[in-house]
Amino acid sequence: MSISYRLADIAAQLGGQLLGDAEVCITQVATLDNARPDQISFFSNSKYRAKLAATGAGAVIVGQADADATQLPRIVSDNPYAYFAKVSALLNPSPSFKPGIHPSAVIDATAQIDPAVSIAAQVVIEAGAKISAHSVIGAGCYVGANTVIGPHARLYPHVTIYHDCVIGSGLIAHSGSVIGADGFGIAMDQGRWIKIPQIGRVVIGDDVEIGANTTIDRGALDDTVIEDGVKLDNQIQVAHNVRIGAHTAIAGCAGIAGSAVIGRYCLIGGGARILGHLQLADHVEVAAHTLVGKSIREPGSYAAIYPFSKSEDWRKNAVHLRHLDEMLKRIKKLEQENALLKGKDQ
Amino acid sequence: MSISYRLADIAAQLGGQLLGDAEVCITQVATLDNARPDQISFFSNSKYRAKLAATGAGAVIVGQADADATQLPRIVSDNPYAYFAKVSALLNPSPSFKPGIHPSAVIDATAQIDPAVSIAAQVVIEAGAKISAHSVIGAGCYVGANTVIGPHARLYPHVTIYHDCVIGSGLIAHSGSVIGADGFGIAMDQGRWIKIPQIGRVVIGDDVEIGANTTIDRGALDDTVIEDGVKLDNQIQVAHNVRIGAHTAIAGCAGIAGSAVIGRYCLIGGGARILGHLQLADHVEVAAHTLVGKSIREPGSYAAIYPFSKSEDWRKNAVHLRHLDEMLKRIKKLEQENALLKGKDQ
Amino acid sequence: MSISYRLADIAAQLGGQLLGDAEVCITQVATLDNARPDQISFFSNSKYRAKLAATGAGAVIVGQADADATQLPRIVSDNPYAYFAKVSALLNPSPSFKPGIHPSAVIDATAQIDPAVSIAAQVVIEAGAKISAHSVIGAGCYVGANTVIGPHARLYPHVTIYHDCVIGSGLIAHSGSVIGADGFGIAMDQGRWIKIPQIGRVVIGDDVEIGANTTIDRGALDDTVIEDGVKLDNQIQVAHNVRIGAHTAIAGCAGIAGSAVIGRYCLIGGGARILGHLQLADHVEVAAHTLVGKSIREPGSYAAIYPFSKSEDWRKNAVHLRHLDEMLKRIKKLEQENALLKGKDQ
Repeated sequence: MSISYRLADIAAQLGGQLLGDAEVCITQVATLDNARPDQISFFSNSKYRAKLAATGAGAVIVGQADADATQLPRIVSDNPYAYFAKVSALLNPSPSFKPGIHPSAVIDATAQIDPAVSIAAQVVIEAGAKISAHSVIGAGCYVGANTVIGPHARLYPHVTIYHDCVIGSGLIAHSGSVIGADGFGIAMDQGRWIKIPQIGRVVIGDDVEIGANTTIDRGALDDTVIEDGVKLDNQIQVAHNVRIGAHTAIAGCAGIAGSAVIGRYCLIGGGARILGHLQLADHVEVAAHTLVGKSIREPGSYAAIYPFSKSEDWRKNAVHLRHLDEMLKRIKKLEQENALLKGKDQ
Repeated sequence: MSISYRLADIAAQLGGQLLGDAEVCITQVATLDNARPDQISFFSNSKYRAKLAATGAGAVIVGQADADATQLPRIVSDNPYAYFAKVSALLNPSPSFKPGIHPSAVIDATAQIDPAVSIAAQVVIEAGAKISAHSVIGAGCYVGANTVIGPHARLYPHVTIYHDCVIGSGLIAHSGSVIGADGFGIAMDQGRWIKIPQIGRVVIGDDVEIGANTTIDRGALDDTVIEDGVKLDNQIQVAHNVRIGAHTAIAGCAGIAGSAVIGRYCLIGGGARILGHLQLADHVEVAAHTLVGKSIREPGSYAAIYPFSKSEDWRKNAVHLRHLDEMLKRIKKLEQENALLKGKDQ
Repeated sequence: MSISYRLADIAAQLGGQLLGDAEVCITQVATLDNARPDQISFFSNSKYRAKLAATGAGAVIVGQADADATQLPRIVSDNPYAYFAKVSALLNPSPSFKPGIHPSAVIDATAQIDPAVSIAAQVVIEAGAKISAHSVIGAGCYVGANTVIGPHARLYPHVTIYHDCVIGSGLIAHSGSVIGADGFGIAMDQGRWIKIPQIGRVVIGDDVEIGANTTIDRGALDDTVIEDGVKLDNQIQVAHNVRIGAHTAIAGCAGIAGSAVIGRYCLIGGGARILGHLQLADHVEVAAHTLVGKSIREPGSYAAIYPFSKSEDWRKNAVHLRHLDEMLKRIKKLEQENALLKGKDQ
């Protein structure tokens, strides 16, 4: 089976202004570098102008300002990258899954599985769990007791969801992600750690994507909450009682410590760390590898990255970080001396 | 089924001084914010005094200094947080599991499974493995050949334990954790890496908890050792031949490189990195996101966190980190000049 | 079964110069500290000279310069560590697996499984996948549709490989690793994130090792490529469209952002972060916990590590990082004043 659209069909479905040959047939999306005549690419960064000139693409999606940047058949859009995403979705629809339950799956008799659900081999679903219509549960997934998964979910193989979690519609969860494990709650008592039962849940809104091997812990007492439209990359750790605001996107390897509250439409860079019990306003951007150690009340972009250099230069300079305070004192002393010297000078 | 205790019963079981109505019935623990009249909360941080005043809790656990901070029925304890943990354990006992082996589990005929063990669906247990009494092996877990798991273990679904590991009593291992994978041992030989067989084991003491997707590598030659009472959060990497001292707690995303030896009662913050072959004394605290690049011989608290700021401020300041050495030289030159100027002044 | 070699047999097979008793029988490798008389150790770091003197080993592998550093039976080699790796491989051969498919495995009828393949319990292999000769697929692994795995692969339990990936010969993949999950591709459109279908593949060369819980995302449009001989430790995140050059080794918890191109023979330290769309030359070394925010065109060693200190010292010094620019301005002002003062002095 192969999917093909005329450029005219694409513009008719998705809008935008079509310039050039509307009859060109498009079967796939591709990069400017590798596109062939039956493929469509996009151009949104002027730094790639030479690639645009050299592309073998049959058509290109461009922004308003670049409407004349090429003579290729093209669609002009306010947001060429989003337009490209939509074209790609058109050309690469999600695979369809036949409803049904593989005979090797182990489903508790009290679980409620919608007839329009597809459950793959080796899946385990516990008592009282509920899987809603059009959801696809990949091979070897585990759904704990009483957990509710909304419609149109797509769990890739080996996703683990503990008991009592509540998940909205359209969840995409990649392999190895773990939702609802115990938060890290311990109390020291006479030289030994006592475990604090983690009795909260994980509550996830609609249209959330969770990357491979990402972990979202259940709440200690109240719930951990992931709001609608949140996008989490791989290997992110979300601790107990965190709340992540709607439409926030977090890049790989980030860690969000317990009870942090992150606003809506935030962008958290890869490997960033948000300490516990902090609050981040809406529209906050945190650079990669940056630790946020205080609440951020103002939208904006924040960073704390040590600039790298050749190791010998780094060694020479970094050693002084342990003496910055002394360095400042020496500057202050020099300023006092100079004030004095200038005074005597007068 | 619902569990309920009179406040008097709780104090009788767990100690502490009871003040106020001893007959109040408690069914659950909760935060000060969300507690209802049949719930007990705790107060140990004076910053939450307003929450204490406004709480709907039926009872509160408080410290000695706060015995009169509320008129609610209360239990006064030296360690209110630990007391709270114990009350929560009372009200939220671990679920009980019926001993038995799910028919879909694949257990080697030479494995020794105590009759009081519960083994869930899709589990695989290899030859010579031993699972001791009252252990619960969750769905889809894997236990390698000759691995010994002590009594009262709780493996959540999808835990993987390689061959020949030795685990004490009371292990809690969360989903996706991997115990005993090969350490990262390679030697360069004429332009190619040769693998060094990892023939050590992982040896884990009693009462250890291992978070979701945490990895503990087997030793290269000798063993990797996790002592009694160690608590590991999610997504921690413990490399080969590490030793973690008893009752040390490590927060999420930390990484411990090969052959590091960490003392007892240490606290390692989230995302911290301990380089290889280092030693940390007992009672060392390492801040989140801090790299430890030298052994620490003295107990105490250590940090290396770059303070974050607005990106434009960060950019303006961070650029100078590559010139700190030059900056110091300029200060020294100024000091020399000033000494000279002052000299001439005399 | 126990394996034993005379020292003479080892030298005959692996080369090197044998000094001392060639008849000593060796059954295992061990550290200098723990070796017994039937074990061989190695000495390549002069810092361990005292351990060499005290070792109970029956034989030792040493470098040319240390040919006389001990009187024990010894093999002198140009590269004692690599020699040791080879001896260990001799004494610890990979376990052999009987070809065959466990009855609990679920293999699509259109998958091509070489007769010399071993497939363990609970494995799932999808339509059109191909597993080549002498490969071992551990318990609970998942191989997606049309994925091709070359000969002599070793997948430990619970490895997940998505559809359409291509893997060379000799792959070692540890438990929890996920190959081919979607890259993090999203476009903002009118307040909502749209998913960009990830239609590239993961293409892996020969002799690659992938650590536990490491994730390698499939390409967005073109492929993610891991070249021959690359060695990846645990919990590494490799984003979409990354290319990792041959024989590069990356330590645990590192993260490589999208479209980064890493050269051959690079060494990337634990927890390091390489930002997206960067290029690293061949033979680049990046220190642990270092963020690389610009391309590196020259081989060499690079670092950006904040030196740790006692927390109170850290606090005193780190506060000035937000004022480095001001500090430099004060130095400049002092220099101008001094120029003036010296001028007046003349």
